[in-house]
Amino acid sequence: MKKNSIDIGIEKYSIYFTETIEQIKISLKEIINVYNPSKLFLICDINVYNIYKSFVNEMCIEMKAELLNICCLEEKKNIDTVSAIYDFLIEKHANRDSMVIALGGGIAGDIVGFACSTYMRGIKFINVPTTLISQTDSSVGGKVGYNYKDIKNSIGAFYNPKAVIICIDFIKTLPEEQFKSGLGEVIKYSLIYDKEMLNYMETNYKDILNISYRSLSYLIKNCVEIKRQVVTEDFKDEGLRNILNFGHSIGHAIEVDSHYSISHGEAVALGILVALKISEGKFNLDKNLYSRIVNLYANLGIRLNYDISNYDEFMNALRHDKKNDQNIRFVLIKDIAKCEIKVKVTEDEIRTAIKESIEGDS
Amino acid sequence: MKKNSIDIGIEKYSIYFTETIEQIKISLKEIINVYNPSKLFLICDINVYNIYKSFVNEMCIEMKAELLNICCLEEKKNIDTVSAIYDFLIEKHANRDSMVIALGGGIAGDIVGFACSTYMRGIKFINVPTTLISQTDSSVGGKVGYNYKDIKNSIGAFYNPKAVIICIDFIKTLPEEQFKSGLGEVIKYSLIYDKEMLNYMETNYKDILNISYRSLSYLIKNCVEIKRQVVTEDFKDEGLRNILNFGHSIGHAIEVDSHYSISHGEAVALGILVALKISEGKFNLDKNLYSRIVNLYANLGIRLNYDISNYDEFMNALRHDKKNDQNIRFVLIKDIAKCEIKVKVTEDEIRTAIKESIEGDS
Repeated sequence: MKKNSIDIGIEKYSIYFTETIEQIKISLKEIINVYNPSKLFLICDINVYNIYKSFVNEMCIEMKAELLNICCLEEKKNIDTVSAIYDFLIEKHANRDSMVIALGGGIAGDIVGFACSTYMRGIKFINVPTTLISQTDSSVGGKVGYNYKDIKNSIGAFYNPKAVIICIDFIKTLPEEQFKSGLGEVIKYSLIYDKEMLNYMETNYKDILNISYRSLSYLIKNCVEIKRQVVTEDFKDEGLRNILNFGHSIGHAIEVDSHYSISHGEAVALGILVALKISEGKFNLDKNLYSRIVNLYANLGIRLNYDISNYDEFMNALRHDKKNDQNIRFVLIKDIAKCEIKVKVTEDEIRTAIKESIEGDS
Repeated sequence: MKKNSIDIGIEKYSIYFTETIEQIKISLKEIINVYNPSKLFLICDINVYNIYKSFVNEMCIEMKAELLNICCLEEKKNIDTVSAIYDFLIEKHANRDSMVIALGGGIAGDIVGFACSTYMRGIKFINVPTTLISQTDSSVGGKVGYNYKDIKNSIGAFYNPKAVIICIDFIKTLPEEQFKSGLGEVIKYSLIYDKEMLNYMETNYKDILNISYRSLSYLIKNCVEIKRQVVTEDFKDEGLRNILNFGHSIGHAIEVDSHYSISHGEAVALGILVALKISEGKFNLDKNLYSRIVNLYANLGIRLNYDISNYDEFMNALRHDKKNDQNIRFVLIKDIAKCEIKVKVTEDEIRTAIKESIEGDS
């Protein structure tokens, strides 16, 4: 078992990497020994529970943890689910010395993290992400929250877990769509920060699709290390951290337009194609890169096309994006690992780029 | 106009003291010049608006601020009011560069502060407290939140404003009950930290009751300075900050038991009497102090008696207090300005002290 210590702003926490789910308990015991919580709670995505029932039940008995299963669909990422967690914690007399373990994907981590950040003004939590997207992206960096009035993550906070445990075993039971969703974020990391990782994916796409431990471990650790560097420098998302939103402005709007039938990472992957096209126009980005990425998507089986169903709502979602001021602003790239943040983009430029990319014939 | 700079943890913000409401605008302009917000919003307690309508309306025009009035009763300190603020901010396209001014008492500051701490993961806010209790206590220290399931402030965060503007003019239009409520907190500060201030109140109670600028200014600045020192040392309420809860455990339970018909500060004042009695038993506290405090309450017209209406619910509220672990723990004093925190107290000891104090014949 390898361990990575991560230092974000004034708060430090550890990220544990484990190969098997059995090793999770070892990491957990280590963490519990440090914090010595008065009570332990496990809040679990019901889907994860259904697959890993005996493991979760045994862990609860062994750790003397009280269990709550929650439904972690995007449309349930709301105040009602947050309140259900508050109710559970109140009923079980959770107090400031208690600790909560979140077990599930990005939605579980976001909702449980937000509930923990606000229950009694903050109780300790540990994040055990189970999807590729949460392992590579959302579990590190302290962003927690929920959707309000169809605006994704519009209510939230910056709140770090006391530890993150990343177990690659979980990826093996991930539905294909969610696996592809995670790959969308991994490609984003390679484009904004890591030429080597892009080359690696192009060469090793078959290993990746076969979920080989070696390749997944390489990708996840790389993404976590990139995210660690970025959020350490800009925890409150006021500058550099913006680059992590590459592909996300369009991505979020596609999620809204599709009523969340398109997964986050796939929407980001589509958003990346649009952002690359805009980058070509704005910064003369080499057009070969677009072809390389389209080819990589094809090899990895990632969706290349999407037709916007309602342009008005789509543009409205874009305008309401948290990342905007009065103007619509995008993260664009001049080259691999050369980002430009907060670039003002017009609605016309967006429409044109969409026609040339995800609504085109490529 | 005098200014105090306050440094809490890694965040700094300024506290402005003004004598007249007109001077508030000068302070506001100074703050706005520093932060240069894209949009300005004023969220105002409807009671304050009704008294200061023309001032508030003029300020909104002058500052180009959008106005929302909210009802700030204790029973409205809930997620519905928080959501009404979210709705207003979304409708008016507030973004991360916007700034919100909260104008009202402690409830306004707590709710608006919480909404600001969570809207888009945090937008800037300025607190303009209008009551004695919020000017001396709740506006400094970063605690924001709302009540959930009858548990006071059970959902919340630590979130600092960018500035606090304290205008003593507001005290003159304060209902008597709320003025007395504020005095309860001031007496708390004198008992936990400041022998001189207690002497001052005993000598100058007539000036205080006449709301002389000199005496109010002295008390408010003293309390703010004490709070500044305490929260700078322990922002996250893990140690020293506990002393600010002197009288509050019983106080909160009285608020619940009375269905909030007893104001916060009066409940704290009653809680102080009980805590003094327990302190006599536990730490041999000089019984003269209890007599002095009863005498001061009598001079200031602060309530001395309260009969618990439902002991079961009262004890239940005590057990659910955020400050507790498995046991009920109180802040007690050995002498003026000599506090003991997290003292384990039994339900029997509490009942006995209540009989000897607020339910007695004193």
